[in-house]
Amino acid sequence: MKRGLFISIEGPDGSGKSTQIKLIKEFLNDIGMDAILTREPGGTVISEKIRQIILDKEHIEMDPMTEALLYAASRAQHVAEVIKPGLQSGKTVICDRFVDSSIAYQGYGRHLGDAVRIINEYAVAGCMPDITFLLKVDPSVGKDRIKEEEQDRLENEKLDFHNTVFKGYLELEEIYKDRIIGIDATKNIDEISNQIVSHINNILKVKD
Amino acid sequence: MKRGLFISIEGPDGSGKSTQIKLIKEFLNDIGMDAILTREPGGTVISEKIRQIILDKEHIEMDPMTEALLYAASRAQHVAEVIKPGLQSGKTVICDRFVDSSIAYQGYGRHLGDAVRIINEYAVAGCMPDITFLLKVDPSVGKDRIKEEEQDRLENEKLDFHNTVFKGYLELEEIYKDRIIGIDATKNIDEISNQIVSHINNILKVKD
Repeated sequence: MKRGLFISIEGPDGSGKSTQIKLIKEFLNDIGMDAILTREPGGTVISEKIRQIILDKEHIEMDPMTEALLYAASRAQHVAEVIKPGLQSGKTVICDRFVDSSIAYQGYGRHLGDAVRIINEYAVAGCMPDITFLLKVDPSVGKDRIKEEEQDRLENEKLDFHNTVFKGYLELEEIYKDRIIGIDATKNIDEISNQIVSHINNILKVKD
Repeated sequence: MKRGLFISIEGPDGSGKSTQIKLIKEFLNDIGMDAILTREPGGTVISEKIRQIILDKEHIEMDPMTEALLYAASRAQHVAEVIKPGLQSGKTVICDRFVDSSIAYQGYGRHLGDAVRIINEYAVAGCMPDITFLLKVDPSVGKDRIKEEEQDRLENEKLDFHNTVFKGYLELEEIYKDRIIGIDATKNIDEISNQIVSHINNILKVKD
Protein backbone atom coordinates (compact mmCIF):
# COMPACT_ATOMS: atom_id res chain seq x y z
CA MET A 1 0.00 0.00 0.00
CA LYS A 2 1.15 3.53 -0.84
CA ARG A 3 2.12 5.74 2.10
CA GLY A 4 -0.45 8.48 2.75
CA LEU A 5 0.19 12.21 2.43
CA PHE A 6 1.57 13.97 5.51
CA ILE A 7 0.48 17.63 5.84
CA SER A 8 1.41 19.94 8.71
CA ILE A 9 0.02 23.40 9.47
CA GLU A 10 2.14 26.00 11.20
CA GLY A 11 1.85 29.62 12.24
CA PRO A 12 1.42 31.94 15.23
CA ASP A 13 -1.49 31.43 17.61
CA GLY A 14 -4.62 32.99 16.17
CA SER A 15 -3.44 32.59 12.56
CA GLY A 16 -6.47 30.42 11.72
CA LYS A 17 -4.85 26.96 11.70
CA SER A 18 -7.87 25.09 13.13
CA THR A 19 -10.27 26.62 10.60
CA GLN A 20 -8.03 25.73 7.66
CA ILE A 21 -7.44 22.20 8.94
CA LYS A 22 -11.20 21.56 8.98
CA LEU A 23 -11.47 22.87 5.42
CA ILE A 24 -8.60 20.64 4.25
CA LYS A 25 -10.33 17.63 5.77
CA GLU A 26 -13.63 18.55 4.05
CA PHE A 27 -11.84 18.89 0.72
CA LEU A 28 -10.09 15.52 1.14
CA ASN A 29 -13.33 13.79 2.14
CA ASP A 30 -15.05 15.33 -0.91
CA ILE A 31 -12.49 13.73 -3.22
CA GLY A 32 -12.88 10.40 -1.36
CA MET A 33 -9.68 10.49 0.70
CA ASP A 34 -9.48 9.32 4.28
CA ALA A 35 -7.81 11.87 6.57
CA ILE A 36 -6.70 11.83 10.19
CA LEU A 37 -6.68 15.18 12.04
CA THR A 38 -4.25 15.41 14.89
CA ARG A 39 -2.46 18.05 16.91
CA GLU A 40 0.72 18.79 18.80
CA PRO A 41 1.55 18.67 21.59
CA GLY A 42 -0.90 15.80 22.08
CA GLY A 43 -2.59 13.23 19.89
CA THR A 44 -2.10 10.17 22.17
CA VAL A 45 -2.87 9.40 25.83
CA ILE A 46 0.79 9.77 26.79
CA SER A 47 1.29 12.89 24.64
CA GLU A 48 -1.78 14.56 26.17
CA LYS A 49 -0.34 13.97 29.65
CA ILE A 50 2.95 15.54 28.50
CA ARG A 51 0.95 18.41 26.97
CA GLN A 52 -0.63 19.13 30.38
CA ILE A 53 2.83 19.48 31.96
CA ILE A 54 4.08 21.75 29.15
CA LEU A 55 1.13 24.13 29.06
CA ASP A 56 0.37 24.32 32.81
CA LYS A 57 0.42 28.02 33.76
CA GLU A 58 1.82 27.13 37.22
CA HIS A 59 5.07 25.84 35.70
CA ILE A 60 6.80 29.21 35.44
CA GLU A 61 10.06 27.60 36.61
CA MET A 62 10.27 25.33 33.55
CA ASP A 63 13.74 25.35 31.98
CA PRO A 64 13.74 26.05 28.20
CA MET A 65 15.57 22.76 27.53
CA THR A 66 13.00 20.83 29.60
CA GLU A 67 10.29 22.42 27.48
CA ALA A 68 12.06 21.47 24.24
CA LEU A 69 12.64 17.88 25.39
CA LEU A 70 9.02 17.49 26.54
CA TYR A 71 7.76 18.66 23.13
CA ALA A 72 10.12 16.18 21.47
CA ALA A 73 8.97 13.35 23.78
CA SER A 74 5.33 14.09 23.05
CA ARG A 75 6.16 14.12 19.32
CA ALA A 76 8.07 10.81 19.40
CA GLN A 77 4.98 9.12 20.89
CA HIS A 78 2.66 10.89 18.46
CA VAL A 79 4.74 9.76 15.48
CA ALA A 80 5.06 6.15 16.71
CA GLU A 81 1.43 5.70 17.70
CA VAL A 82 -0.60 7.86 15.29
CA ILE A 83 1.29 9.45 12.40
CA LYS A 84 3.45 6.55 11.15
CA PRO A 85 0.71 3.89 11.41
CA GLY A 86 -1.78 6.30 9.75
CA LEU A 87 0.53 7.03 6.83
CA GLN A 88 1.46 3.36 6.47
CA SER A 89 -2.22 2.42 6.20
CA GLY A 90 -2.46 4.89 3.29
CA LYS A 91 -4.36 7.64 5.13
CA THR A 92 -3.63 11.35 4.82
CA VAL A 93 -2.46 12.81 8.14
CA ILE A 94 -3.06 16.50 8.86
CA CYS A 95 -1.12 17.71 11.87
CA ASP A 96 -1.77 20.97 13.72
CA ARG A 97 1.86 22.02 14.47
CA PHE A 98 4.88 19.71 14.08
CA VAL A 99 8.69 20.00 14.15
CA ASP A 100 8.74 23.57 12.77
CA SER A 101 6.83 24.77 15.84
CA SER A 102 9.56 23.42 18.10
CA ILE A 103 12.32 25.03 16.05
CA ALA A 104 10.46 28.36 15.93
CA TYR A 105 9.30 28.45 19.58
CA GLN A 106 12.21 26.77 21.40
CA GLY A 107 15.06 27.08 18.87
CA TYR A 108 14.40 30.75 18.04
CA GLY A 109 11.98 31.97 20.78
CA ARG A 110 13.91 30.38 23.67
CA HIS A 111 17.30 30.80 21.94
CA LEU A 112 18.18 27.09 22.15
CA GLY A 113 19.39 27.15 18.56
CA ASP A 114 20.27 24.04 16.61
CA ALA A 115 19.89 21.71 19.64
CA VAL A 116 16.14 21.68 18.98
CA ARG A 117 16.53 20.53 15.39
CA ILE A 118 18.92 17.73 16.40
CA ILE A 119 16.75 16.49 19.29
CA ASN A 120 13.75 16.45 16.98
CA GLU A 121 15.55 14.45 14.33
CA TYR A 122 15.64 11.66 16.91
CA ALA A 123 12.00 12.25 17.89
CA VAL A 124 10.54 12.00 14.37
CA ALA A 125 12.85 9.19 13.18
CA GLY A 126 12.66 10.30 9.53
CA CYS A 127 8.89 10.89 9.50
CA MET A 128 8.65 14.44 8.07
CA PRO A 129 5.67 16.20 6.41
CA ASP A 130 5.42 16.11 2.61
CA ILE A 131 4.07 19.66 2.74
CA THR A 132 3.77 22.31 5.43
CA PHE A 133 1.49 25.35 5.25
CA LEU A 134 2.79 28.32 7.21
CA LEU A 135 -0.07 30.73 7.97
CA LYS A 136 1.64 34.09 8.14
CA VAL A 137 0.10 36.78 10.28
CA ASP A 138 1.80 39.38 12.42
CA PRO A 139 1.94 37.98 15.99
CA SER A 140 0.30 41.11 17.44
CA VAL A 141 -2.71 40.48 15.17
CA GLY A 142 -2.82 36.76 16.00
CA LYS A 143 -2.55 37.38 19.75
CA ASP A 144 -5.51 39.78 19.67
CA ARG A 145 -7.70 37.00 18.29
CA ILE A 146 -7.33 34.89 21.48
CA LYS A 147 -8.97 35.85 24.78
CA GLU A 148 -6.40 36.47 27.52
CA GLU A 149 -8.09 34.14 30.05
CA GLU A 150 -7.93 31.28 27.54
CA GLN A 151 -4.18 31.63 26.88
CA ASP A 152 -1.86 28.81 28.02
CA ARG A 153 1.72 29.18 29.35
CA LEU A 154 3.23 29.74 25.91
CA GLU A 155 0.47 31.92 24.49
CA ASN A 156 0.91 34.03 27.62
CA GLU A 157 4.47 35.03 26.64
CA LYS A 158 5.24 38.65 25.82
CA LEU A 159 4.94 39.97 22.26
CA ASP A 160 8.76 40.12 21.93
CA PHE A 161 8.89 36.33 22.27
CA HIS A 162 6.18 35.87 19.65
CA ASN A 163 7.97 38.22 17.27
CA THR A 164 11.19 36.18 17.60
CA VAL A 165 9.19 33.00 16.98
CA PHE A 166 7.66 34.53 13.86
CA LYS A 167 11.09 35.56 12.60
CA GLY A 168 12.12 31.94 13.11
CA TYR A 169 9.17 30.74 11.04
CA LEU A 170 10.16 33.08 8.19
CA GLU A 171 13.73 31.75 8.25
CA LEU A 172 12.46 28.16 8.16
CA GLU A 173 10.31 29.07 5.15
CA GLU A 174 13.51 30.21 3.43
CA ILE A 175 15.56 27.15 4.44
CA TYR A 176 12.92 24.54 3.57
CA LYS A 177 11.55 26.17 0.40
CA ASP A 178 10.56 22.81 -1.10
CA ARG A 179 8.43 21.77 1.85
CA ILE A 180 7.11 24.94 3.51
CA ILE A 181 4.48 27.02 1.67
CA GLY A 182 3.97 30.47 3.19
CA ILE A 183 0.37 31.70 3.07
CA ASP A 184 -0.80 35.27 3.75
CA ALA A 185 -3.19 34.60 6.63
CA THR A 186 -4.63 38.12 6.67
CA LYS A 187 -6.70 37.25 3.60
CA ASN A 188 -10.23 35.89 4.01
CA ILE A 189 -10.87 32.26 4.93
CA ASP A 190 -12.00 31.11 1.48
CA GLU A 191 -9.07 32.71 -0.34
CA ILE A 192 -6.62 31.00 2.04
CA SER A 193 -8.41 27.68 1.71
CA ASN A 194 -8.41 27.86 -2.09
CA GLN A 195 -4.69 28.48 -2.10
CA ILE A 196 -4.02 25.53 0.23
CA VAL A 197 -6.32 23.17 -1.70
CA SER A 198 -4.62 24.08 -4.96
CA HIS A 199 -1.21 23.14 -3.48
CA ILE A 200 -2.56 19.84 -2.14
CA ASN A 201 -4.05 19.05 -5.55
CA ASN A 202 -0.66 19.63 -7.14
CA ILE A 203 1.17 17.41 -4.70
CA LEU A 204 -1.46 14.65 -5.09
CA LYS A 205 -0.93 14.72 -8.88
CA VAL A 206 2.83 14.34 -8.41
CA LYS A 207 2.33 11.50 -5.90
CA ASP A 208 -0.02 9.54 -8.26
CA MET B 1 32.61 30.27 46.34
CA LYS B 2 34.00 26.87 45.35
CA ARG B 3 31.64 24.58 43.43
CA GLY B 4 30.46 21.64 45.55
CA LEU B 5 31.21 17.98 44.86
CA PHE B 6 28.77 16.17 42.55
CA ILE B 7 28.38 12.43 43.30
CA SER B 8 26.07 10.04 41.45
CA ILE B 9 25.18 6.46 42.38
CA GLU B 10 24.34 3.94 39.70
CA GLY B 11 23.49 0.27 39.49
CA PRO B 12 20.69 -2.22 38.88
CA ASP B 13 17.53 -2.05 40.98
CA GLY B 14 18.09 -3.74 44.33
CA SER B 15 21.83 -3.08 44.29
CA GLY B 16 21.60 -1.09 47.53
CA LYS B 17 21.87 2.47 46.18
CA SER B 18 19.50 4.05 48.74
CA THR B 19 21.31 2.50 51.69
CA GLN B 20 24.70 3.68 50.47
CA ILE B 21 23.42 7.18 49.70
CA LYS B 22 22.24 7.57 53.31
CA LEU B 23 25.64 6.42 54.55
CA ILE B 24 27.44 8.89 52.27
CA LYS B 25 25.28 11.70 53.63
CA GLU B 26 26.01 10.64 57.24
CA PHE B 27 29.73 10.59 56.51
CA LEU B 28 29.62 14.05 54.89
CA ASN B 29 27.61 15.50 57.77
CA ASP B 30 30.10 13.98 60.24
CA ILE B 31 32.95 15.87 58.57
CA GLY B 32 30.83 19.05 58.55
CA MET B 33 29.83 19.12 54.88
CA ASP B 34 26.39 20.12 53.68
CA ALA B 35 24.87 17.58 51.28
CA ILE B 36 21.74 17.50 49.14
CA LEU B 37 20.20 14.07 48.42
CA THR B 38 18.21 13.86 45.23
CA ARG B 39 16.99 11.24 42.78
CA GLU B 40 16.17 10.65 39.14
CA PRO B 41 13.74 10.67 37.54
CA GLY B 42 12.37 13.33 39.88
CA GLY B 43 13.78 15.89 42.26
CA THR B 44 11.55 18.86 41.27
CA VAL B 45 7.79 19.38 40.97
CA ILE B 46 7.96 19.23 37.16
CA SER B 47 10.38 16.27 37.17
CA GLU B 48 8.13 14.31 39.56
CA LYS B 49 5.19 14.82 37.19
CA ILE B 50 7.36 13.54 34.33
CA ARG B 51 8.43 10.62 36.54
CA GLN B 52 4.77 9.62 36.99
CA ILE B 53 4.29 9.43 33.22
CA ILE B 54 7.49 7.40 32.72
CA LEU B 55 6.88 4.83 35.45
CA ASP B 56 3.09 4.40 35.06
CA LYS B 57 2.44 0.67 34.54
CA GLU B 58 -0.49 1.47 32.24
CA HIS B 59 1.81 3.06 29.64
CA ILE B 60 2.80 -0.19 27.91
CA GLU B 61 2.53 1.60 24.53
CA MET B 62 5.35 4.04 25.35
CA ASP B 63 7.85 4.34 22.50
CA PRO B 64 11.51 3.82 23.58
CA MET B 65 12.47 7.27 22.22
CA THR B 66 9.60 8.91 24.14
CA GLU B 67 10.95 7.26 27.27
CA ALA B 68 14.50 8.49 26.59
CA LEU B 69 13.31 12.06 25.89
CA LEU B 70 11.14 12.13 29.02
CA TYR B 71 14.09 11.05 31.17
CA ALA B 72 16.20 13.77 29.54
CA ALA B 73 13.45 16.40 30.10
CA SER B 74 13.16 15.44 33.75
CA ARG B 75 16.95 15.64 34.06
CA ALA B 76 17.21 19.08 32.39
CA GLN B 77 14.77 20.45 34.97
CA HIS B 78 16.53 18.68 37.83
CA VAL B 79 19.91 20.10 36.77
CA ALA B 80 18.58 23.64 36.29
CA GLU B 81 16.53 23.79 39.47
CA VAL B 82 18.40 21.62 42.02
CA ILE B 83 21.81 20.30 41.00
CA LYS B 84 23.44 23.41 39.45
CA PRO B 85 22.21 25.86 42.13
CA GLY B 86 23.23 23.37 44.86
CA LEU B 87 26.75 22.95 43.49
CA GLN B 88 27.10 26.68 42.89
CA SER B 89 26.24 27.39 46.53
CA GLY B 90 29.11 25.05 47.51
CA LYS B 91 26.98 22.09 48.63
CA THR B 92 27.73 18.45 47.83
CA VAL B 93 25.01 16.93 45.66
CA ILE B 94 24.39 13.16 45.84
CA CYS B 95 22.17 11.95 43.04
CA ASP B 96 20.44 8.55 42.94
CA ARG B 97 20.86 7.73 39.21
CA PHE B 98 21.96 10.24 36.55
CA VAL B 99 23.02 10.22 32.87
CA ASP B 100 24.60 6.75 33.07
CA SER B 101 21.19 5.26 33.91
CA SER B 102 19.75 6.68 30.69
CA ILE B 103 22.62 5.38 28.58
CA ALA B 104 22.42 1.94 30.24
CA TYR B 105 18.60 1.58 30.25
CA GLN B 106 17.62 3.37 27.03
CA GLY B 107 20.87 3.36 25.03
CA TYR B 108 21.72 -0.30 25.73
CA GLY B 109 18.49 -1.81 27.16
CA ARG B 110 16.19 -0.23 24.54
CA HIS B 111 18.87 -0.34 21.81
CA LEU B 112 18.66 3.41 21.09
CA GLY B 113 22.45 3.63 21.01
CA ASP B 114 24.34 6.89 20.89
CA ALA B 115 21.19 9.03 20.47
CA VAL B 116 20.71 8.83 24.25
CA ARG B 117 24.16 10.18 25.00
CA ILE B 118 23.71 13.09 22.56
CA ILE B 119 20.23 14.02 23.84
CA ASN B 120 21.55 13.97 27.40
CA GLU B 121 24.48 16.22 26.57
CA TYR B 122 21.84 18.88 25.85
CA ALA B 123 19.89 17.99 29.01
CA VAL B 124 22.81 18.32 31.46
CA ALA B 125 24.44 21.33 29.76
CA GLY B 126 27.92 20.39 30.96
CA CYS B 127 26.89 19.55 34.55
CA MET B 128 28.43 16.07 35.02
CA PRO B 129 29.27 14.19 38.26
CA ASP B 130 32.81 14.45 39.63
CA ILE B 131 32.55 10.82 40.71
CA THR B 132 30.06 8.02 40.06
CA PHE B 133 29.77 4.84 42.12
CA LEU B 134 28.49 1.88 40.15
CA LEU B 135 27.09 -0.77 42.53
CA LYS B 136 27.65 -4.01 40.67
CA VAL B 137 25.36 -6.91 41.38
CA ASP B 138 24.00 -9.50 38.98
CA PRO B 139 20.53 -8.26 37.85
CA SER B 140 18.89 -11.56 38.84
CA VAL B 141 20.11 -11.04 42.42
CA GLY B 142 19.05 -7.37 42.46
CA LYS B 143 15.59 -8.17 41.06
CA ASP B 144 14.96 -10.77 43.80
CA ARG B 145 15.47 -8.08 46.43
CA ILE B 146 12.39 -6.09 45.22
CA LYS B 147 8.81 -7.35 45.76
CA GLU B 148 7.00 -7.92 42.45
CA GLU B 149 3.93 -5.86 43.42
CA GLU B 150 6.18 -2.88 44.17
CA GLN B 151 7.94 -2.91 40.79
CA ASP B 152 7.32 0.00 38.38
CA ARG B 153 7.12 -0.19 34.57
CA LEU B 154 10.89 -0.46 34.09
CA GLU B 155 11.60 -2.75 37.04
CA ASN B 156 8.87 -4.99 35.60
CA GLU B 157 10.90 -5.67 32.45
CA LYS B 158 12.15 -9.20 31.77
CA LEU B 159 15.57 -10.35 33.04
CA ASP B 160 16.99 -10.22 29.49
CA PHE B 161 16.45 -6.45 29.45
CA HIS B 162 18.13 -6.03 32.85
CA ASN B 163 21.09 -8.14 31.72
CA THR B 164 21.57 -5.89 28.66
CA VAL B 165 21.36 -2.82 30.91
CA PHE B 166 24.00 -4.31 33.23
CA LYS B 167 26.27 -5.06 30.28
CA GLY B 168 25.84 -1.39 29.32
CA TYR B 169 26.88 -0.28 32.80
CA LEU B 170 30.03 -2.41 32.60
CA GLU B 171 30.92 -0.83 29.24
CA LEU B 172 30.40 2.66 30.66
CA GLU B 173 32.71 1.76 33.56
CA GLU B 174 35.36 0.92 30.94
CA ILE B 175 34.78 4.06 28.85
CA TYR B 176 34.66 6.53 31.75
CA LYS B 177 37.39 4.95 33.91
CA ASP B 178 38.31 8.31 35.48
CA ARG B 179 34.82 9.06 36.69
CA ILE B 180 33.05 5.73 37.30
CA ILE B 181 34.17 3.56 40.24
CA GLY B 182 32.81 0.02 40.11
CA ILE B 183 31.97 -1.46 43.51
CA ASP B 184 31.20 -5.13 44.26
CA ALA B 185 27.71 -4.76 45.71
CA THR B 186 27.48 -8.37 46.90
CA LYS B 187 29.76 -7.51 49.82
CA ASN B 188 28.24 -6.41 53.13
CA ILE B 189 26.91 -2.90 53.66
CA ASP B 190 29.80 -1.66 55.82
CA GLU B 191 32.49 -2.96 53.48
CA ILE B 192 30.83 -1.21 50.53
CA SER B 193 30.39 2.00 52.51
CA ASN B 194 34.04 2.02 53.64
CA GLN B 195 35.17 1.65 50.04
CA ILE B 196 32.94 4.53 48.87
CA VAL B 197 33.96 6.82 51.74
CA SER B 198 37.62 6.20 51.05
CA HIS B 199 37.16 7.29 47.40
CA ILE B 200 35.25 10.40 48.47
CA ASN B 201 38.01 11.26 50.94
CA ASN B 202 40.58 11.00 48.16
CA ILE B 203 38.63 13.24 45.80
CA LEU B 204 38.04 15.80 48.56
CA LYS B 205 41.81 15.98 49.18
CA VAL B 206 42.44 16.59 45.47
CA LYS B 207 39.72 19.26 45.35
CA ASP B 208 41.15 21.13 48.37
